[in-house]
Amino acid sequence: MREIWLVASLEFDFSMPFVFGVSGLALVFAAGLVLWILRQDAGTQRMREISDAIQTGAEAYLNRQYRTISVIAIAFAIILALVIRDPTNSWLGVQTAGGFLLGAVCSNLAGYVAMYISVRSNVRTASAVLSGLDRALKIAFRGGMVFGLAVVSMSLVGISALYLLFGDPRLSVGFGFGASFAALFAQLGGGIYTKAADMSADLVGKVEAGIPEDDPRNPAVVADLVGDNVGDIAGRGADLFESITGENIGAMILGYGLVVGLGFSNSWIVFPVVVRGFGLIAAIVGMFFVYARKNSDPFMALTRGLVVTAVIAAAAFYFLTDYMLNSPSMFYAALVGIVAAVLVAFITNYYTSYTKRSVQEVARAAESGPAPGIATGLSVGMESSGLFILVIGGAILISYGLGGGVQALAGHGTPAQVQMGIYATAIATMGMLSVTPMILAMDGFGPITDNAGGIVEMSGIPEEARAISDKMDAAGNTTKALTKGYGVASAALSAFLLFSAFLEVAALKGVDLAKPEVFVGGFVGAMLIFVFSALAVRAVGRTSAEMIKEVRRQFHEIPGLIQGSAKPDYSKCIDISTKSALKNMIAPSLLIVIAPVVVGLVLGSEAVGALLMIGTVAGVLVALFMNNAGAALDNAKKFIEAGNLGGKGSAAHAAAVIGDTLGDPLKDTAGPSLHVVVKLLNTITLSMAPLFILYALLG
Amino acid sequence: MREIWLVASLEFDFSMPFVFGVSGLALVFAAGLVLWILRQDAGTQRMREISDAIQTGAEAYLNRQYRTISVIAIAFAIILALVIRDPTNSWLGVQTAGGFLLGAVCSNLAGYVAMYISVRSNVRTASAVLSGLDRALKIAFRGGMVFGLAVVSMSLVGISALYLLFGDPRLSVGFGFGASFAALFAQLGGGIYTKAADMSADLVGKVEAGIPEDDPRNPAVVADLVGDNVGDIAGRGADLFESITGENIGAMILGYGLVVGLGFSNSWIVFPVVVRGFGLIAAIVGMFFVYARKNSDPFMALTRGLVVTAVIAAAAFYFLTDYMLNSPSMFYAALVGIVAAVLVAFITNYYTSYTKRSVQEVARAAESGPAPGIATGLSVGMESSGLFILVIGGAILISYGLGGGVQALAGHGTPAQVQMGIYATAIATMGMLSVTPMILAMDGFGPITDNAGGIVEMSGIPEEARAISDKMDAAGNTTKALTKGYGVASAALSAFLLFSAFLEVAALKGVDLAKPEVFVGGFVGAMLIFVFSALAVRAVGRTSAEMIKEVRRQFHEIPGLIQGSAKPDYSKCIDISTKSALKNMIAPSLLIVIAPVVVGLVLGSEAVGALLMIGTVAGVLVALFMNNAGAALDNAKKFIEAGNLGGKGSAAHAAAVIGDTLGDPLKDTAGPSLHVVVKLLNTITLSMAPLFILYALLG
Repeated sequence: MREIWLVASLEFDFSMPFVFGVSGLALVFAAGLVLWILRQDAGTQRMREISDAIQTGAEAYLNRQYRTISVIAIAFAIILALVIRDPTNSWLGVQTAGGFLLGAVCSNLAGYVAMYISVRSNVRTASAVLSGLDRALKIAFRGGMVFGLAVVSMSLVGISALYLLFGDPRLSVGFGFGASFAALFAQLGGGIYTKAADMSADLVGKVEAGIPEDDPRNPAVVADLVGDNVGDIAGRGADLFESITGENIGAMILGYGLVVGLGFSNSWIVFPVVVRGFGLIAAIVGMFFVYARKNSDPFMALTRGLVVTAVIAAAAFYFLTDYMLNSPSMFYAALVGIVAAVLVAFITNYYTSYTKRSVQEVARAAESGPAPGIATGLSVGMESSGLFILVIGGAILISYGLGGGVQALAGHGTPAQVQMGIYATAIATMGMLSVTPMILAMDGFGPITDNAGGIVEMSGIPEEARAISDKMDAAGNTTKALTKGYGVASAALSAFLLFSAFLEVAALKGVDLAKPEVFVGGFVGAMLIFVFSALAVRAVGRTSAEMIKEVRRQFHEIPGLIQGSAKPDYSKCIDISTKSALKNMIAPSLLIVIAPVVVGLVLGSEAVGALLMIGTVAGVLVALFMNNAGAALDNAKKFIEAGNLGGKGSAAHAAAVIGDTLGDPLKDTAGPSLHVVVKLLNTITLSMAPLFILYALLG
Repeated sequence: MREIWLVASLEFDFSMPFVFGVSGLALVFAAGLVLWILRQDAGTQRMREISDAIQTGAEAYLNRQYRTISVIAIAFAIILALVIRDPTNSWLGVQTAGGFLLGAVCSNLAGYVAMYISVRSNVRTASAVLSGLDRALKIAFRGGMVFGLAVVSMSLVGISALYLLFGDPRLSVGFGFGASFAALFAQLGGGIYTKAADMSADLVGKVEAGIPEDDPRNPAVVADLVGDNVGDIAGRGADLFESITGENIGAMILGYGLVVGLGFSNSWIVFPVVVRGFGLIAAIVGMFFVYARKNSDPFMALTRGLVVTAVIAAAAFYFLTDYMLNSPSMFYAALVGIVAAVLVAFITNYYTSYTKRSVQEVARAAESGPAPGIATGLSVGMESSGLFILVIGGAILISYGLGGGVQALAGHGTPAQVQMGIYATAIATMGMLSVTPMILAMDGFGPITDNAGGIVEMSGIPEEARAISDKMDAAGNTTKALTKGYGVASAALSAFLLFSAFLEVAALKGVDLAKPEVFVGGFVGAMLIFVFSALAVRAVGRTSAEMIKEVRRQFHEIPGLIQGSAKPDYSKCIDISTKSALKNMIAPSLLIVIAPVVVGLVLGSEAVGALLMIGTVAGVLVALFMNNAGAALDNAKKFIEAGNLGGKGSAAHAAAVIGDTLGDPLKDTAGPSLHVVVKLLNTITLSMAPLFILYALLG
């Protein structure tokens, strides 16, 4: 390892200073955006009251959640420090545990920053809709951009610092594990919180009491708005922090394999972080292209920003692959990743947009009743996996062929060609992920506008302003569906590179499914996905059942509530969501953390490899199913509400509302948590590989 | 091959005469049962009218279905004859095509026999409930036993004849492929038919018009009863025919590997069919233990018969493993399979019986509304995979260890130990499947009693008789859930042996997921499962939407229908189901047949191996999810109808009815079809392996 360190020092070539410099710059820029947002008008007295309630609820929840996660993470770090051993490196356990804690802290911090800015952007967005679309759009989008930049820069700084410290990216896997570990709890806890509140508010408020969405008389409405911030915002912030981190570390390990095995230059190790640095610059430039004229479509403004960012990122790949890697074919691999991202967006849109055939078929099926509507919605979710997997599978094979040549693709490549081919799949993933800060900003845009819409509704603001907030809300719904598709796509595409990194670290030649213990390991991997999803969905059901009782109680027992003369007790609902989310996030998360370790110790590294791969395949498919089924059911309802098939109040609408409520825990709790699960399976097996190897030697 | 043929002739040891003899005996016994059933009283005039309508509808449907399947099968056989080539055997294409056609014909015949006896047993069961439980139970059960015996004997005769003809079980794979091919169309077409009719009858009849189940005023009621016979009966008959056939051929191929590779005696090849011959005897003996005293539980009577059968089968294993294989550890492997079958029954019961926690939680969730009820039901289905996979995974590993020794289990076995270990997993599967004729009889018992209940209801028979038919119906529902669990368990357990047989035929050393083309092949395998399920569920939705319109039209346009003074036009609904089922079964089935061939030609044999394995894993999990979610939703409704949580007419009941309707296409169309898909993936890849090998040599 010392040799590598020396090599790294000798070849020192400003890559690292660039990464630290550009990350610092992005953080300063993000801080500037925060100041800009805070300077915006914070709305009327009533708006500020509501916003304060949301802020208090979100902060209280996150504080409690992070306390819980910290306790579990510290316990895990101690175990890691004690059990991880390597005959050649007696510090490996401590290094892994230290990286683990740092990763967990950064992940929580990423979530906190995201929540901090979103609870401040929402009320300012709400206030800005009074003065027109452009300003409101900018506040909501820049709120998302703050944590887009913060998340990516924090990840880059953390990984690069560990790399400088250890000189071997394999020693940074603890950081990725910590990030995934904390992210799973955060995404699952937040997801349970937000959907339990949402379902309860809808079922009792809209269906039983017949009051509109976000009506201030609904006791669950503030919990619902808090939920957007702790689930969609803080949860997703933590999720994407760990995605970027895991993918970067995996790619650096593959680069390290090329350096050690084939004598390539160190540029192949640091390429992933350098190219991401350019991604930050691309996103900052792209941000200035997000603006709206009166009456223009906010979604077009966001798309414009994204296209500019993608073009700059592609240009950066063109120069960097030539300058750093001296390999133009790697540029084409990056393009493959970017094209795959665009195709995935089209596919997601095709299956979940209400202007398209699939969603309209769900709506028409709802005319026959809720069950046919739901059955059709579920089938749309399952069907959407077809084209999606073809695109991802094609991207893996094409980029592999670009890197390793046709011979590698035909299965006759030399070991060097195979290694180059696998590195090229990593480059394709980097291509897809090069626009991440922009995607994160779009992802944040959704819940911020959703919250702003809620504040507008609850403050009783003029109709005209509502038209603007509705327009932004519609754009936010579209971006939410697309960014979820992007999240699954990046998980699927990076699976292969992370798996290859695992083989590298675990010193495995392959994973042969023909061995019974490997096959059983794979079976267990897929099973974990199903059991985890079951527990996640059930947790939402249990929490909402409790809250539904409370909401019904308040409607019955508080005189004047339904007439609007008395106020509901919002804090009771917030309390139920908080306690239940914290309680229910633990068991499923621990299952995902512990099962691979048990399989590794009992059945060995190769079985864990199968668990990882087949778990990833199952996780991607179930996540696609849940995300897209949920989105199709949601938009089928919106299609009817837009006046089709009898519109609001028709039997079809009632059926579609039931379908939407069912889709909620699928698309916003279980689905997004599965993205994290897939990554966590990777980082945990990477971190634990030395343990499995050691145990196999002893046994 | 000629040498093997000689070896087979020299060692000729009465195994084959025994198999043919016992199969012939079982067929004669089944014919005797048919005569016994036909001698029973065929009920009142009204009963016979209804029964005739069911019979006519079922026969008309099956005739059209088999015509459609025949056309497609002949086209496929021609293609097989032309494309399958082997440098050392110029007749391979014709042999495969001939076996394929024979398998398809036998599969259709199995379905036809099952339907033939069930449409004659149902009315006699209905008539017998007037005279008490024992007779009704016996007619319904023996109706099931007829096709249990017929299906297993036909499979044994076909496989054994081909083995005698070719002397190499690898040449019989076409027979298995043909059986699976025809079974997929039959199960899917029948499944669409039955559930579209069931959903329509329930949604318009029970929910909208408020008339009871199986009410003669409901225009869809006859289509619903026909559906039980063409879906649950004929479809399942074809399904289990192909299961037994595929598993037998796979096990014989593994035995052949031991004979050729390690010089074992031919007994290892013919052991699977001999042991199954004893299974037939065990089932015939067990049948006589199925009887009921007044007021006894029909389910207990069925269980008694099953236990007797299992004990006799276990004794047969004890002697045969000693006599034929001279290997007592193989007996323990068989016991592992039998124990696994029992455990799976317990697990299925735990998750789907309404006396247990899970179903009651679904019912309680339905109190909050249909969406929470469905969400909980779906999560029960997903959760049920956990224990199930642990049992199956444990059974594979333990039997493998018993056959190959601890060293094989630890991954250090000699090639011979590994081969013995894999053969032992096949023996475990044989153990599990040794009670198949009994399970088939129990599986047939369900739809026959369901039909009998419908006939009783439609004929207006005294309350007292209904109590008996309700009791039998409840037992039938339990057996249906358990036999489905058994079906998935045998698919999961046999997956490993069939996969090993594929490696043997394709001359592959292993299936290494670390290769990108193999990983992508695996991804496609899992994706096929989701897309197939989507198409199956959608087909039910589309068919029922059409039928719902027709049922509503009849209620509106036929004066006096709802008052009972006019008759509905049953044939219109039958016609809609027939046409739509035939149309919609084709695309999903062809997808499953064509995709593995395309993957094999483009990505090679190893990628097909991954497609097969990961497709099997995904297929088993999705089937479990759908079967058990559907059963839990169904029984949650029954739990409420039994007077809990407000009983019939409560809001919880309305919610549970919606959940049940959603569960129907999952548990009775997509789920059971997936069992066939999993087996079909095996037999098609086995049959096509020579093509992939040849193509790889050319390319």
